[in-house]
Amino acid sequence: MPSRTGSHGRVGTGRSLPERGLLLLVVLVLLEGSVRPLGAASSPDTGRQEELDTRKTTERENYTKKAFPVLSLDYHHIHTPFEISLWVLLASLMKLGFHLIPRLSGIVPESCLLIVVGLLVGGLIKLAGEKVPPVLDSKLFFLCLLPPIILDAGYFLPIRPFMENLGTILMFAVVGTLWNAFFVGGLLYAVCQIQPGNYSDLHQLELLPCLLFASIISAVDPVAVLAVFEEIHINELLHILVFGESLLNDAVTVVLYHLFEEYSGAGTVTILDCVLGVISFLVVSLGGVLVGVIYGFLAAFTSRFTSHTRVIEPLFVFVYSYMAYLSAEMFHLSGIMSLIACGATMRPYVEANISHKSHTTIKYFLKMWSSVSETLIFIFLGVATVDGPHLWNWTFVTVTVILCLVSRVIGVVGLTYVINKFRIVKLTTKDQFIVAYGGLRGAIAFSLGFLLDKKHFPMREMFLTAIITVIFFTVFVQGMTIKPLVELLAVKKKQEAKRTINEEIHTQVRPLTSSHPHQIDVLLLLTRPFLYRCFHLLAVWWYFI
Amino acid sequence: MPSRTGSHGRVGTGRSLPERGLLLLVVLVLLEGSVRPLGAASSPDTGRQEELDTRKTTERENYTKKAFPVLSLDYHHIHTPFEISLWVLLASLMKLGFHLIPRLSGIVPESCLLIVVGLLVGGLIKLAGEKVPPVLDSKLFFLCLLPPIILDAGYFLPIRPFMENLGTILMFAVVGTLWNAFFVGGLLYAVCQIQPGNYSDLHQLELLPCLLFASIISAVDPVAVLAVFEEIHINELLHILVFGESLLNDAVTVVLYHLFEEYSGAGTVTILDCVLGVISFLVVSLGGVLVGVIYGFLAAFTSRFTSHTRVIEPLFVFVYSYMAYLSAEMFHLSGIMSLIACGATMRPYVEANISHKSHTTIKYFLKMWSSVSETLIFIFLGVATVDGPHLWNWTFVTVTVILCLVSRVIGVVGLTYVINKFRIVKLTTKDQFIVAYGGLRGAIAFSLGFLLDKKHFPMREMFLTAIITVIFFTVFVQGMTIKPLVELLAVKKKQEAKRTINEEIHTQVRPLTSSHPHQIDVLLLLTRPFLYRCFHLLAVWWYFI
Repeated sequence: MPSRTGSHGRVGTGRSLPERGLLLLVVLVLLEGSVRPLGAASSPDTGRQEELDTRKTTERENYTKKAFPVLSLDYHHIHTPFEISLWVLLASLMKLGFHLIPRLSGIVPESCLLIVVGLLVGGLIKLAGEKVPPVLDSKLFFLCLLPPIILDAGYFLPIRPFMENLGTILMFAVVGTLWNAFFVGGLLYAVCQIQPGNYSDLHQLELLPCLLFASIISAVDPVAVLAVFEEIHINELLHILVFGESLLNDAVTVVLYHLFEEYSGAGTVTILDCVLGVISFLVVSLGGVLVGVIYGFLAAFTSRFTSHTRVIEPLFVFVYSYMAYLSAEMFHLSGIMSLIACGATMRPYVEANISHKSHTTIKYFLKMWSSVSETLIFIFLGVATVDGPHLWNWTFVTVTVILCLVSRVIGVVGLTYVINKFRIVKLTTKDQFIVAYGGLRGAIAFSLGFLLDKKHFPMREMFLTAIITVIFFTVFVQGMTIKPLVELLAVKKKQEAKRTINEEIHTQVRPLTSSHPHQIDVLLLLTRPFLYRCFHLLAVWWYFI
Repeated sequence: MPSRTGSHGRVGTGRSLPERGLLLLVVLVLLEGSVRPLGAASSPDTGRQEELDTRKTTERENYTKKAFPVLSLDYHHIHTPFEISLWVLLASLMKLGFHLIPRLSGIVPESCLLIVVGLLVGGLIKLAGEKVPPVLDSKLFFLCLLPPIILDAGYFLPIRPFMENLGTILMFAVVGTLWNAFFVGGLLYAVCQIQPGNYSDLHQLELLPCLLFASIISAVDPVAVLAVFEEIHINELLHILVFGESLLNDAVTVVLYHLFEEYSGAGTVTILDCVLGVISFLVVSLGGVLVGVIYGFLAAFTSRFTSHTRVIEPLFVFVYSYMAYLSAEMFHLSGIMSLIACGATMRPYVEANISHKSHTTIKYFLKMWSSVSETLIFIFLGVATVDGPHLWNWTFVTVTVILCLVSRVIGVVGLTYVINKFRIVKLTTKDQFIVAYGGLRGAIAFSLGFLLDKKHFPMREMFLTAIITVIFFTVFVQGMTIKPLVELLAVKKKQEAKRTINEEIHTQVRPLTSSHPHQIDVLLLLTRPFLYRCFHLLAVWWYFI
């Protein structure tokens, strides 16, 4: 059935200014209204609860009969779900609001606007005198906000381009990230050492904390990359290179982080530790993929039996994927790689088994969830920035930003020189520029920094400030300028017209030809237009000859 | 696009026994596997956390360099989402499993089987020596498990039959529930008083706790009614009478519960309190509806602007509805009525504004969520039964069960006698029997009993045992026998063939003719078969003449 977007699009554009103003007013009122409960609820609850209990006991003991309360207010027992709903509603309304102001969303990427909104909300909460809630708490981020985005990416990952460029992607993800970490960490340590001892306390910063900081800051962030690249419609090759790198570097980040965090106490790292580190990297990455594949097959197997209970089909996709992620996290394996592997594994089988309505539900629900999650992450980045605590050190921050840029450029250029020897389709200078420029940092780096223990890392606040600065720099400066630069350099974009047909066939045909070569989808033949049918038959004929 | 159910249904029936066995094996393994973490995690965590912290501190103090851990297990930091996922997966697999055994699901309603599964899981957890987690914790039940079911019911509530029978429904919901509460409470108190003082401690039970208990046990439960009536395909009138009653009696239950709970301490209830009680009832019910309508209109208004962000359209429906429920709960108004009002209010406007894919997503996601929620509730009822604590008192329990049945029958017969004077379509004896027999109790009664404070209600355990017995009796005995009885009495069933066309037209035409009489849905005309088009044109023509 054709979507009703067209007819209602026409109705939408005829909407007058007062209505938009009214909507923005509603948004502002909600913002104000949300500040007070959000702030109020973050105040320590235990004290209030005890106070309530003692008051209740004294009331009962000397009971004076009072009138039956016809109306009473009890915010406490619903405050958690209420706050969560308010944040989600705020994120959704923001997303809605930006699309109503087309000029703004054309210039500034959505991620920047959302960070600004977060800064505003954080500022409002602070002005109201309340304590800012710890919104980018690592547990909340890694267990609730990140998985939907990664699952959406993994489930709809274009497998063919990903596999074709796997070698390149792995080179960038593994070697590139290692290079970034050691280059930035080493040079940062050197700069800190040459600082005069009595002038600043940078002199006390040892090598291993520097390397730990560098390993946090060197990984390209999938959320930021998705958010920015989504709007520039770059060609598929570059998109899959940068995005694939941002997904696969998770294993490297996990190992480096744990390695340096573990040994910052000891102060020394031996050759044995390095060898164990390499083994750990293999375990973390391959183990993560294995866990994902196991759950993927479980989901595929379960979907064979859902013909009588179509209603809960989407649930299996969500639950098995989430459990794959949690199981990988439980063993300190790479949760992101597990989730990607799970989504990519189950998809061809599940799609062949489930009903079309379940397919639509899964697709749209994943897109909805990941969209809201992404919006929330950027808003929370803004809120967390206001929260602090900050320790600004000009040298440290500027050197970090510069080193990040320099190491990224050198890394990409160097690796491309090596990679191009093995590639058929070489990466041009323009491609290298986009890959280097698209290496954005995001909330994963912040959450990892947030996880650091203050006791073992007294420089934690300085690290967090530097991380936030790098994130802001990449998201604002690089994020805002990448679109004009892409147009200026005339980089090949995604081919719009052909995309629809190609994508349609590739996403329909590939699962059929790879897993069930003899089951030609009759419904597909009947319901797609004649042109698609021709392409489909050609593709199948080509596959078999 | 035609659903693929047909073709895969044929593939499904050809499935061999070993495959089903393999699936059941997977289910059993998951069951076993789930018991240990579920039980282990319910053990007090605080002690373990402190232990871990002290151990970590001593480790750092006398740091002996150990090898880098290549693989480590850390269940603690993911245990909450992991357990939630396990429970959801268990519920889904159970639902799947029952439909694979058609003979069983034909005899025993799903709700009974699920309670049995819950009893098994609870028993396994206890056998493993772990503490059973407090699964039917009132907060979890009222804030997480109940809203999806009510929203699904409210959003898809057939408005016309509901409004046509509103008077009858309100009579049953308000007067019927009040009658039940006072009849059962009063007679229960009388029976307790005539018990010999030294024989049992029933003599100590005062009147107000009895009335409180009776008010908890007298409300018909929407979840149980939905679960059982879904399978018997009763005609629409009876369905809407019993189901509507189960929804609208929430206000009565809320007021009676708070009234008796508040004054059980004082021991006396004056005329003023009764008057305040009546006022409170009006405030609770109409206030709840008002809150729901406000949020409904907010959602309708927001949906006008979502033409550029189709992805997050379903989210607004969910978030606004949930916030309506929470806002009502915050003011101790009727959350259920708020949710029903919100869903029913927003639906015509939202459906006219959102895309078809969003519509499918909302519909299927609501059905999926409410289905899983319902399954979980029954499983948890079983688990909570195993958990206890129980205090079995033969007299109390048997008298309660008998009085519930007797008061229900007398109430329905008496009220129908009055109602039939005002109805055009009279309720026959068969109808009265089904209405009386379909008055099932469920988890809401249990959760309300669970909420009671042990200090003020020393008989709490006895109450809970009696509540569970009544629930089991209604769900098992009445639930299992209602289907054969319906067939025996040859009660009119839902008309299958006509239903599709009528429902289709009614659900498509009514919103159009009521809110946008001039916008005939062109797409509807083009995409439905010629027959539907004729009916549609006839209905529109009939509306206008």
